[in-house]
Order: sequence, then structure tokens, then C-alpha cells
Amino acid sequence: MTTTQTAPKQNGIESGGPIRFSSRLKEGRALAQDVWSIYNAVNLPPDCLNLGQGYMNFAPPLWIREAAEEALRTVPANHYSHPKGRLRLREALKKHYEADFGRTLDAETEILVTSGANEGQYSVFVAFLEHGDEVILFEPFFDQYLPSVTFNGGVPVYVPLHPRTAGVDKPTGHDWKMDVDELRRAITPRTKMIVLNTPHNPVGKVFTRTEVEAIADIAKEFNLLVMSDEVYECLVFDGEEHVRIATLPGMWERTVTVGSAGKSFAATGWRVGWLIGPESIIKPTLAASTRIVFCSNSPLQEAAAAGLELSKAHNFFPTQTKEYAERREVLIKVFDDLGMKYTLPQGSYFVLLDISDLDIPDDYPFPESLNGRGRDFKWVFPSTRPPCSIFSPHSPRACWFMAMEIGVSSIPVSEFYCEEHRNIGEAYARFAFCKDIDTMHAAAERLKNLSKHLKKKQI
Amino acid sequence: MTTTQTAPKQNGIESGGPIRFSSRLKEGRALAQDVWSIYNAVNLPPDCLNLGQGYMNFAPPLWIREAAEEALRTVPANHYSHPKGRLRLREALKKHYEADFGRTLDAETEILVTSGANEGQYSVFVAFLEHGDEVILFEPFFDQYLPSVTFNGGVPVYVPLHPRTAGVDKPTGHDWKMDVDELRRAITPRTKMIVLNTPHNPVGKVFTRTEVEAIADIAKEFNLLVMSDEVYECLVFDGEEHVRIATLPGMWERTVTVGSAGKSFAATGWRVGWLIGPESIIKPTLAASTRIVFCSNSPLQEAAAAGLELSKAHNFFPTQTKEYAERREVLIKVFDDLGMKYTLPQGSYFVLLDISDLDIPDDYPFPESLNGRGRDFKWVFPSTRPPCSIFSPHSPRACWFMAMEIGVSSIPVSEFYCEEHRNIGEAYARFAFCKDIDTMHAAAERLKNLSKHLKKKQI
Repeated sequence: MTTTQTAPKQNGIESGGPIRFSSRLKEGRALAQDVWSIYNAVNLPPDCLNLGQGYMNFAPPLWIREAAEEALRTVPANHYSHPKGRLRLREALKKHYEADFGRTLDAETEILVTSGANEGQYSVFVAFLEHGDEVILFEPFFDQYLPSVTFNGGVPVYVPLHPRTAGVDKPTGHDWKMDVDELRRAITPRTKMIVLNTPHNPVGKVFTRTEVEAIADIAKEFNLLVMSDEVYECLVFDGEEHVRIATLPGMWERTVTVGSAGKSFAATGWRVGWLIGPESIIKPTLAASTRIVFCSNSPLQEAAAAGLELSKAHNFFPTQTKEYAERREVLIKVFDDLGMKYTLPQGSYFVLLDISDLDIPDDYPFPESLNGRGRDFKWVFPSTRPPCSIFSPHSPRACWFMAMEIGVSSIPVSEFYCEEHRNIGEAYARFAFCKDIDTMHAAAERLKNLSKHLKKKQI
Repeated sequence: MTTTQTAPKQNGIESGGPIRFSSRLKEGRALAQDVWSIYNAVNLPPDCLNLGQGYMNFAPPLWIREAAEEALRTVPANHYSHPKGRLRLREALKKHYEADFGRTLDAETEILVTSGANEGQYSVFVAFLEHGDEVILFEPFFDQYLPSVTFNGGVPVYVPLHPRTAGVDKPTGHDWKMDVDELRRAITPRTKMIVLNTPHNPVGKVFTRTEVEAIADIAKEFNLLVMSDEVYECLVFDGEEHVRIATLPGMWERTVTVGSAGKSFAATGWRVGWLIGPESIIKPTLAASTRIVFCSNSPLQEAAAAGLELSKAHNFFPTQTKEYAERREVLIKVFDDLGMKYTLPQGSYFVLLDISDLDIPDDYPFPESLNGRGRDFKWVFPSTRPPCSIFSPHSPRACWFMAMEIGVSSIPVSEFYCEEHRNIGEAYARFAFCKDIDTMHAAAERLKNLSKHLKKKQI
């Protein structure tokens, strides 16, 4: 303890000025207005159908909610859980995942319950990143990854998926291609981690075995940690194979797999997620998570446990997948009828609509927040690039236009890219089909009116 | 993106070795076995009465739990909340706190719901600390502060409260004195923040107006941020005045006050807390919290809102305080009867028992984990000090001994100090009285047996 009794005034512009916030908030666009705020209900017409944000407009199954109510009627499930998560949930996760992972899982050392998948991912970054460590993110990427990396001293390095859809009649997630050479070129001596997201938000791509193997080979060659965000694991369509990178030879010891009760059970507000991996990854991550949140909420952990325990008795996951496939069908049918191109998702609950053919009037009145969008955004990498200008055909304007004129909201895919690669996503709008079938039909009815705004072909 | 195709193998001891975790985990004793794990039910006799850990053995009031059940029966309260917190809860907090804070509170910009008070505090450190910034912690301190500071590049600087209880017949929290000169000497040009905790865990001290004013004066003089952890605000006894530092002149703009639904409503497992402060503090902290957890769980936010809305109708807080005062009474009566000294708490739910007079046999069999305790702990500051040895009369040994021989567990207060100051706490064991009255009576019955183990006086 030093004895500087005459320490100068500091930390503010002057005495009484606001306390200076951390410079880490200047990175990773942490203070920028996020895309969700711009395209939310406050800014859009009140009767707009929200296919923008990825949460359900239906509740979790009654039998799972009843388990939450039961838990609330006990004493222990209203109090602290072990920071690892409640034993009942960890045991349920062990039983649920052992076959998928092809190994015995230790509920004490290889499973960690987190306060949503988001907090779990954040804790992995806290636990493993040194200042200057590079983290590979495939673009388009879930926007929370970026500040989670930069807050913890990491440097995001972007590897885009390329939509090779030209000339493809019915593009699918498979047509968004990873370039293995590009991935390899992104590796430097400071690379620490690869973040994989399969099934992928927003593309709906389920990475093929060949692709996952290529990523695994590079991870092993350069001794990298892999964080595999598989929160959409239970939403895989058309018999596609969901390949868990943790199950490939030599990958268990370097992979942490992320799962989510919110996505699995239509309970995004429960904030219960989990991590599965070797003790060498789970233990440091537990140390981080314990300090960040101490533990996750107890009653909804009990409910999530019940969800896993009883899912087979209720034939829950196959039924849910079928229901999501029906919702997807409603959406793609209207795009097919309109003759518009889109990316058929093999997993997750998003359809990317190609909005290149939308005819948006040059003088359409866009709000100030949207016009200033490009300039407002700060990206940590590459920081020297100028922001893109936002002119047509371009997804922020198109999403706004569709919300106002058609009454269905979506999210511009360009938001899921760094500035340098933003143009790759500019031709796409993301529609979420995690809404009940009636809402999907109502949205489809409205989307038919896009026919009035297509450049050439009118249906 | 560099093109280092021949990047060397890295990050592990060798290819296939475990991925190296972040050096931040080596600080703030983040990977050490924590005190809660050592003194938990697994290690102690199965019928041991747990007055160690600070959670209740009763459920939150039925009418609040019913509000949780009601929320679970809706759609929106099962899905994402706004990262600021649900509007209903923010409005309820505004109404609840405006009189206490003596000002109008803006529910949009001055109130932030967090995933427990713990996550709120962590987010403040993320939002405000630069690498090397110093944070003043009064000892004994809530053990989560330390790694929360060091994980975010901060350097804890310890200012001990001194138990001036010699010659005092009935010491209270007021007899644990803050030395204002010592606080002043701890300030350096790198000091960024003071963490205040009133009512105080574990001392039970409610800082006096004079003390709070002295802290405020120093904060203003050196333009420091104050994080005031007031999670025990609703548990203040004997007509003591709980002084909110945020309400002192010139302090609102530099203070963030921390509250907790878990502590307020006997719901430690709900993970709902809140921060109140000026927009200049709440906005950066929201940016941090949004990235760390995105949002807090929705149904229990609704329940916490109901708790605040209906607390007056149920005369909840006065009744709860009365019940805790009764529990406190049971505990201090047995210590009085034994003729043992303790610190009478004016707030919170902890009694510090002075265990100087405990006569622990030299050859008593202590577990390995306890004997190795001092050596296992890593403290970031001062890192060069040797660990203390753990010999009698000394709180870890005493707590273990009482758990084994008396059947009542407690927590050694030395754990709430840095190594340098550990000796200050070694004469105390912390007993939590957040247990139902029957448990308190049963514990008192057992504690009577301490009479057999006192050095001189046998009752």
C-alpha cells in the first residue's frame, strides 16, 4: 500500500465529471446501438409480425413448466445451486448426451450448467484468453461472440462463409462454403481458439462431416481450443447429420460444446445453458463462471432437468422438430411462390431470404438511426477499414422497408459480419420461424405482397 | 489477417497437452478450493446443522412464489427479457427506492436488473476497470469481490476494519472501526473505485453516517467510483440507520448501489439482483451485462416485481426483520450464557463469535485440506507474503472442531482477509442466522456443549 496522500484528482474530465468507463467498452461495438434495438417493436409498426428476433411466441411445454412450479414449492430449489449446476440437471445431461458423445460423461467434472449458453461462452473466454490471443469467428457470426472476445483481451479474426449460390436453383446451408485454405491462412502464432456454430445462426447451415473434420485437423495441428456452439442441435431437418466436433478423434480434449435449455425447450427467458467438455476445460471455466454469476437460477434448472428426463416419454424432440419443419415449410412456400431465392436451412430456425430483387424506391424515407448505421458501428478488427455505405440493394434498408410496407420484420444479415466482409451479407434478410404456425401463416399471407416490390418478375 | 501458414504448435505443453488456461485464473485465488467447498455438507458430519453458508432453510413467501408460477403460465415471461430487466420489475424498483434515495429514479436509465447481485457487481468491474486500476476493499470482504476485480485487470487494495473490542463488554458492529487515515493512505493515482458493503458481511456492521461521510469525502476528493453493496439493506436491527452513500451530497453521480431479490425475499437461488445509479454508470454496466448474460431469467423477475409491489400489503419487510431479530436472539443468548464474546450485528444475518477461548486439543485430527490451507491459497496482493501457518487459536481449525464436536458449522473469518491481514480475523467464526427458528433453537442446544471446550471458565 503506497502512501500517496497527495494523489491528484483523476479518472474524470474534472472533479464531478463522469467516471471514465473502461476502454474495453470501446471495442467490440459494445456501446453501439445493437441491431435488436433498431428492429424492435418500439420502432416498427405496432401490428408488425416479428420474425426478426429469435424467440418463440409460444410457451415451453406445460409438463416442463409444471416441473418449474413443483421446484418452487420446495425449499432447496429456491436457494443457491452448486456453481457446477444442480446435480439432478447434470445427471440428466449426462444421460441425455452420453450416446451422442459416444463416451461416459462425468457429471462432476465434464458438465457445467451456466446462466444461459451466452454466459457459458463468456466464461470460456474469461477462462482461456490472454491479452492478444486471437479467436477465429466464422462469418456471419452470432453477434455476442465479438464483445465477449474483446472484453477479455481477445482479438477476433474473421473467416467468412461464402454463399456459392449463383446458378444454384435451390440453395441450402451447404451452399455457404467454408474455404479451408482461408481458415488456414487466418491462423497465426497468437491463435488460441476457433468458435464453431453448427447448426448455424443465421445461415441454418449444418456443417458437413468433411467440413468439421477439416476444422478439427487444423485445431489439432495448431493445438487450438474449439468452442462448439451447438445450441440448435435439436433442430436439424431433412435427416441431416449433426456432427459433433468433440466426437472426432483427438478432439474431445480440446473441445467445449455449448447447449441451451432455452433453445431446446422454447424457454429463452429461463437462462439455463450448459457446457460439456474435458475437465481441463470445464474446471477453469467453472472457476470463471463461479465468480461471474456464482450459480444459475435453481427452479428452472430443475425444470430443464425434468425436460431432459421426460423428453423420450413425451416424444418431445422429434415432435418439436416436426413442428419447426412445418413452420419452415410455410415460410419457404411463400418465397417459392414469389420466385424469390433463399437459403434452405438444414438446422436452426432461420431462413435467409435473398433480397437482391427487391425494388426499394430511392426516395423511401428511412429513419435517421438506419441511415447513420454504418458510421455508428465500431469494429475492433480491422479497425482501419472505412464503414460501408448503406445503399440498395442492401439488407438494413430492405428489412426496414419490408417491416413498414409488408408488416413482417426480419434482421439484416450484414449485421453478422465485420465491416470488411459486410458486403457478403448485404443481399440477405434473416427470417426466424420460431413462431406458432398461425403466426407463420399470417406472415406468409403478408409476404405475398412482396410481389408488388420485386424488380422484374411479378407473380 | 496474416498468412502464417507455418505457425508453430503452441498453447499446450505439447501437441495433445491440455490447452493453457488464462493467467487471470492464477490471480484472485480463482482456482483455489474455496472455503464453501471445504466446510460444506460433503465434508462435515451428515447431521451437522449448517450455520456456515448464508442461505435460508425456508422458502420465499408463498405469495411471491405464486407470482412466479403465474409468470410461468404466460408466454412472454418464459422468454428473453430486455437486458435492462423487465419493465415491471424496473418500475417496481423505482417505486420501492425513490423515497429511500430521495430522488426520482428513471426506470429506463438508472435501474439495471442483473443475474443476481454478484453478476451486477462483476459487470461494474468489467465496465469500469482498466488494467492496473486499484480497487479499495474493506476487510473482511465478501470473497467474490477479489477475483471479480482481478479477472478484469484490477488490483485489490485492502483496508482492514479493526475489531476494537478489547475491554468492550458487549461489542457490536460499531466496534469494528474503519481508520480514515488508513483509507486515505491506501489511495494512489491508480485508485479507481471503493467497494463499500453496508450492512456488512460478515461483520454485521452498519456503517455510521460519520463513516459513510468520510468515505464519500475521499471518493469526491479523488474522483472515485463507489460500488455500495447493500444487499442486506432490508435486514437492519435495533433502529440503526442504514445510510445510503448515494444520497450524500455529490455522491449520486459516482455511486452504484447493489441490491438483491435473493437476500430481500429469501430466494438466493433466483439469481435476480439490481443496480441503481446514474446513467453514466448504468449505461456502461448495461453494455457489460448484456454481453455477459444477455438478460436475467424472466419468470423470477416477475416474482421479484410482485414481491416489491405487494410488500406493504403483506407488511413483509418489518415482519421479516422481526423474524430475523428473533433468530439472532436465540444465537446470542447461548453465547451470552456461555460467557463467550461475539460481535452483535446491527444488520445482515451473521454473528461473529470470538473463539479465542476455545480449547482445541493439540493433537486433534484435522483433515489434510485444512492443514494445507495456507499453502494452497494464492492471493494477488501482496503476492510476496508467505502464507500464514494455521495454528491455534485460529478460526479454520476452530470451525472444523466445532462442526465435528458440536455439530454446528460456521465459516472461519480469516478467509475474508488477505494473507497480510489474516491474523485480524483469526479469532472469529461466522455463524449465519438465516435459518428457521427451530433450527436456530436446535443449534443453540448443541452450542451449549461448547462449555466443555472453553479454556478457563466452565458455565
